[in-house]
This record gives sequence, structure tokens and C-alpha cells, in this order.
Amino acid sequence: MKTQLYSFWRSSASFRVRIALNLKGIDHEIIPIHLLKNGGEQTSTQYEDKNPNRLVPLLIEGDHAIHQSLAIIEYLEEVHPNPPLLPKNAIDRAWVRALAMDIAVDIHPIGNLRVLRYLMKNLGVSAQNKDAWSQHWMRLGLNSLEKQLSKSASAGRFAYGDTPGLVDICLVPQIFNALSAGLDTSCFPKLMTIYRECMALPEFVDAAWEKQIDAEGLNPSIPPKK
Amino acid sequence: MKTQLYSFWRSSASFRVRIALNLKGIDHEIIPIHLLKNGGEQTSTQYEDKNPNRLVPLLIEGDHAIHQSLAIIEYLEEVHPNPPLLPKNAIDRAWVRALAMDIAVDIHPIGNLRVLRYLMKNLGVSAQNKDAWSQHWMRLGLNSLEKQLSKSASAGRFAYGDTPGLVDICLVPQIFNALSAGLDTSCFPKLMTIYRECMALPEFVDAAWEKQIDAEGLNPSIPPKK
Repeated sequence: MKTQLYSFWRSSASFRVRIALNLKGIDHEIIPIHLLKNGGEQTSTQYEDKNPNRLVPLLIEGDHAIHQSLAIIEYLEEVHPNPPLLPKNAIDRAWVRALAMDIAVDIHPIGNLRVLRYLMKNLGVSAQNKDAWSQHWMRLGLNSLEKQLSKSASAGRFAYGDTPGLVDICLVPQIFNALSAGLDTSCFPKLMTIYRECMALPEFVDAAWEKQIDAEGLNPSIPPKK
Repeated sequence: MKTQLYSFWRSSASFRVRIALNLKGIDHEIIPIHLLKNGGEQTSTQYEDKNPNRLVPLLIEGDHAIHQSLAIIEYLEEVHPNPPLLPKNAIDRAWVRALAMDIAVDIHPIGNLRVLRYLMKNLGVSAQNKDAWSQHWMRLGLNSLEKQLSKSASAGRFAYGDTPGLVDICLVPQIFNALSAGLDTSCFPKLMTIYRECMALPEFVDAAWEKQIDAEGLNPSIPPKK
């Protein structure tokens, strides 16, 4: 059976795994899960049976279902080691994982769809303050990332060296979000240089929002290709 | 030079690494970073030079500084493989990493100190609603975890098998938070059984809040040992 990925076009975590699958050259089928329609298809009993945490992405390989984007990517790295998405030595792997988590742990979950909905619905936060919230956590996290990558001796065309890897995989979807949220990205020159390098590669472009089978028209906020 | 860990007694992410260091039997020194005093010691220039993401924990081993708790633990696992904290085969490792991230990605960051402060200070959210927020995300995440672990064939005395590993390392600090936040944990019988197994081990007890050199007295909300 072909590898399947339950995915939503605008989901950053899904986007990460789509890039990883493309970089690894793993033939796969995308199964769209709409996070908004019908109260969110991820909350259906059918989907919850597959993934009790009711989030995307979910990877199905043979009999196995794996959730959590970074756990999926680590799995792909172990089972399909080429091309590698992590460095060879332990200390560099730790560095790359830490930067990836600076995005996946400390930026993304706080601005996730369900969190923004809770802010507005349950706490009565205005749309304006909700946007300020999103921008605040993105700016804080991307600032730290810009500092770290600017002074990193191991950064090359990409976040680590001259081939794309785990940091780039997490960075690009986050930059999509930042641009979509109207964040001024001019204060992140290093990140935007890496972003443009990535978006020159078909593996990233094909994983992007507007290329998905469930994409809902061209979003005006979709960032420029280059 | 002895391994050093920059840590705050109540920080869940620091707590995770303290448990991992204890389980691996790695001799280390704790350097306290107070997340509240003086506007937060993690925001000092001195600390930011070491860790631009201005969070704890930070591990110093020789010339290397590693941040992000899960990146640190993966590093420790690679450099000090015994006793292992991850299963042997790739699919089980993916499972364990996913459950750990269900906590470290999808519960913890949303209820982190800096997030709660922003809610109250910047959005004017009441203390009551702030507590409801914390409880909401914990309940949601722990519910999912309870479901997954209850039906897991690989769960034993601990979340995976009969020796403590990465899920347990993430679970125990989160249960500390849940108990401290007054969450009713009776709906998580599987999680609480695992929690009690863990808290019967000195490696977990010695990493706990009240055993830290920077602990601020016995907190009345500290959960029962057993």
C-alpha cells in the first residue's frame, strides 16, 4: 500500500512532512482533512480512531499510523536515510533539532488554529488582539532564530550546510504563516535568504499551500516564490 | 568539566532533562536561572549570549551548549546510550516520540509562564480565565494521551514497557503542573498509574520541584509522592 499522509493545505505541521516526503522521494498519497469544515474533520470519530490527538498530519505506512510531524520526520529519516535531513554527528544533530523545535515547539503551537479560536470564542479576544498575539510569538521566535543562524558557522545556503534539512523544513511553513499574518520579515534577512533558497526547489514548492489538492484558491497572502 | 544544566525548579522542560540525566547516571551540576526574579534571569544579556531563545533548560557539555529539552535528551541518548530512553525499532521510537511531543509540543508551550503572562498583561485576561485556559489545554492533551496509552499494547509499568523512557520523562512534569493547577486527574487512571510508578524511583523524585537547590519552599500544590 502506498504511503498516505492525512494533511490540511494550510497546516504548517502537514507542510513540514510534505516537504520531507518530497525531499526523500517517497511516493505518497495525500488525504485531505479539513480543519474548519463541519466543525473540523479532525474531530470526527472516524479520524479520532486513527489519531486520538485530533490534529494533522498523520502518516500511514503499512499497518502503522504515526502522528506528530517531527516524530514522523525522524521516522522517515531512520527508515529512508537518503538524502539525510539531519547532520552526521550527534552535536550537530542536537543543534539542528533544537532550531527545528524553536519553531515547532515555541512558535507554532501558540499560534495554532485551535488556540486562536479559543482566544476569540472563549476569552472574547478581539480579532486585532488575536493578530497581535500571533505576530508577537512569531516575531519573538524568528528573532531568536535569526540571531542563532546569523552567527552559525555551520549555516550555508541552507540552515545547516548546503543541502536542505530539518530546520529548513520547519522554517518555510513558519515563514508562510509570518507572511500571511503580515509580519515584517525584513528584520530576518538570514531567514529570508534561506527561505528563498528553499522556495527555489521543487520539493518545497510542490509541498506549498497553493499546490495542494485541498487548497482553497490562491490566497492573496501567499508569499512570493522568489 | 562537569556537565552543567541551566534549570529552573518549576520548569517542566528543565525537569525533563533532570530526569534524563538522573536515569542515565550522568554526573552534573545545576545552575539555577530564575524565570521571574529581575524580570527573568533568562532575559539577561549574559544568558541570552548562551541561549538566544531565552528559555530553560540549557545543557553545557564541554564546549557545547544545547537548548530545547527534547533535543538535549535525544543528544544524551546518542552519546550515553545506556540505559536507553527510546525503543530499539524505528516504528516504536516514532510512537514514543509522538506521545512525548503530544505533551511537549501540544500541551506544555500553550500553558508556559511567558504565555500566561502575556494573556494577563497584554490581553487583560482574568486570573480565573487564565486558569481555565491552562486547564483546558492540559485536559485536552492528557485525555488524548490517556486514550492512546490505555489501548497501547506496548505500555507496561511505564508508558512503553517496564522501564522508564521518554514519554514518562515528559509525563511526570506535566502531571506536576496538572496537580498544581488543581486539575481533576481521576479521569486519567492510566496516566496516574504510570506517574506513581515513576515517582517511586529516585531518578524522578530527585529531579522534582522541591528537591531543587533553587526550590522556593514546599509548595502546597506539590503532588503527593505516592
